[in-house]
Amino acid sequence: MGKLKGMSMEWIDNKLILIDQRYLPLEEIFFECTNYKQAAISIKDMIVRGAPAIGATAAFGMALASFEFDSEDKQNYIKKMQNAKIELSKTRPTAVNLFWALNRMYSLIEDKIENLETKEMSILLEKEAVNIAKEDIEINKAIGLNGGKLLNDGDTVLTHCNAGALATVDYGTALGVIRGAIESGKNIKVYADETRPYLQGARLTVWELMQDGIDTTLISDNMAGWVMNQGKIDAVVVGADRIAANGDTANKIGTYSVAVLAKRHGIPMYIAAPLSTIDMKTKTGEDIPIEERNHDEVRLCHKIKMVMDNVKVFNPSFDVTPNDLITAIITEKGVIKPPFDENLKKLFK
Amino acid sequence: MGKLKGMSMEWIDNKLILIDQRYLPLEEIFFECTNYKQAAISIKDMIVRGAPAIGATAAFGMALASFEFDSEDKQNYIKKMQNAKIELSKTRPTAVNLFWALNRMYSLIEDKIENLETKEMSILLEKEAVNIAKEDIEINKAIGLNGGKLLNDGDTVLTHCNAGALATVDYGTALGVIRGAIESGKNIKVYADETRPYLQGARLTVWELMQDGIDTTLISDNMAGWVMNQGKIDAVVVGADRIAANGDTANKIGTYSVAVLAKRHGIPMYIAAPLSTIDMKTKTGEDIPIEERNHDEVRLCHKIKMVMDNVKVFNPSFDVTPNDLITAIITEKGVIKPPFDENLKKLFK
Repeated sequence: MGKLKGMSMEWIDNKLILIDQRYLPLEEIFFECTNYKQAAISIKDMIVRGAPAIGATAAFGMALASFEFDSEDKQNYIKKMQNAKIELSKTRPTAVNLFWALNRMYSLIEDKIENLETKEMSILLEKEAVNIAKEDIEINKAIGLNGGKLLNDGDTVLTHCNAGALATVDYGTALGVIRGAIESGKNIKVYADETRPYLQGARLTVWELMQDGIDTTLISDNMAGWVMNQGKIDAVVVGADRIAANGDTANKIGTYSVAVLAKRHGIPMYIAAPLSTIDMKTKTGEDIPIEERNHDEVRLCHKIKMVMDNVKVFNPSFDVTPNDLITAIITEKGVIKPPFDENLKKLFK
Repeated sequence: MGKLKGMSMEWIDNKLILIDQRYLPLEEIFFECTNYKQAAISIKDMIVRGAPAIGATAAFGMALASFEFDSEDKQNYIKKMQNAKIELSKTRPTAVNLFWALNRMYSLIEDKIENLETKEMSILLEKEAVNIAKEDIEINKAIGLNGGKLLNDGDTVLTHCNAGALATVDYGTALGVIRGAIESGKNIKVYADETRPYLQGARLTVWELMQDGIDTTLISDNMAGWVMNQGKIDAVVVGADRIAANGDTANKIGTYSVAVLAKRHGIPMYIAAPLSTIDMKTKTGEDIPIEERNHDEVRLCHKIKMVMDNVKVFNPSFDVTPNDLITAIITEKGVIKPPFDENLKKLFK
């Protein structure tokens, strides 16, 4: 199979094709979802990851479910679509884009099912999922345009995890900001934290930036502080899995440490995320559920056992960066600065 | 082969036996040094690591060299011992214990060679190396006794890398402090940073603490900040590779980040190290040479390639924690508090 239309996924012939991110960068393997359960598995097992990409995958999962169930009578159809929504929503708890996309898809059923046949509903849901995916790319380019202005020619940016094309449908949020700056003619270099335990930085960020010819240096997570201390970093740009109404931001584990280090060195800390990642119903970071993943992720290093099976592990997959450590949140609607509670509220008016 | 007398090494029948730390914890393989070049290789290739263990290995390396060359005439003997010292000194640049041990061994030659046969010199050098190893254990126990008092019953300690029995001849410096507290009847739990790229925390610290039945939880390095934020850590205790006259401390890469995070959370940051790690000739941290190691250490994860060979890497093996982030330095002669320049000077009077 050749490249997909989007870096992470493509919808084609009623199937969702995902690049299997568990095998990158050394193997390019694709995963086909022909039913919604496969879409759920692809999110749960991190075949696809990154808040916006999870959202889009869940939307396509709802379209797949509709094609599966649109031969049933309306009542059964609705019941089964409700179940599909619930099942998809249980795959991962932190990224709010998942729930945002599922609600957007399901509210379409609620609005239209009375006056449509289930087969017509499928066409509508497919169109909506395709729109969500298309919008995602447009949104990321707007984030890139807005955020690119914050970077200066010659800057070196530190990023953590992968908030890139692979974490979205394409282009990326944090890496979209880097792409936006470069497209506007600026020379930007990148340091990428490897991002243990899942190594999204090493495996995904470095891979996709090198494909674009962007000068990228890989470091272990524990080198970020020293690299800052040595004056090598001008800005930090990361993505987000959920932003609370006060600006507190859940993102990949280690983001909080990076934010504390950036503060110590007077380096701006930017969060790049679409409006769909901002959850005004979540008041503060304390209300964000933090997923703890399988302990073997820490016991293994790139799939290889490095310690005994009985080693005790703590494996929170995300952490929360409090708003006082955040310089600005870069969205498709502009750059939001403190006070975040006020300014985020204005954004949704 | 059974266990060694010291956890990291044993001198027996004119041979130095090391546990090969590259294979721990899943394989217990031993490495025999029967000549000084093997001792040099064992330091360079990290078969043995940790500042005090490097010092002891270098001392035994000088004894091995002496046995190799004591059939030569005195002039040749001296020349060859000088060369051996130079070769051993070039193995790793940061840990000052290496130079301390080599100077202590070589000054014995300078003092005694005039009045001794070379064979007698060998006996004396062997005795001195054995003394250095014995003293190391006594020193660590004193560090443990002094440092153990700083920990409270019920404390949870975060440690980085391995400053344990495996980093010394036995008992450890930072882990010696934990052992000292436990031996005095306190209940102490440990969080261990895995310490990429070489994974000394995951592979060595967790292994040796579990052997002692100490409650230890393994985390990725990037989780340290979040674990502190969640109130799980009462104190940080780490070792050192070189302490400058002003208290600035070089230690395993990532220690600086941990120190910044500890400061943010008001958690005491303790350095545990013998006097031989304090280098009064090094004025500040800026004067400490920082070793950059092979880039494949970062490209690989536990010996398995995770990214392409052409990925650009930065791999500083150590960083420097400035004295303002250090609560106290725990030595065999007592606990040194700020102002470090004054109080370290007093220590050597």
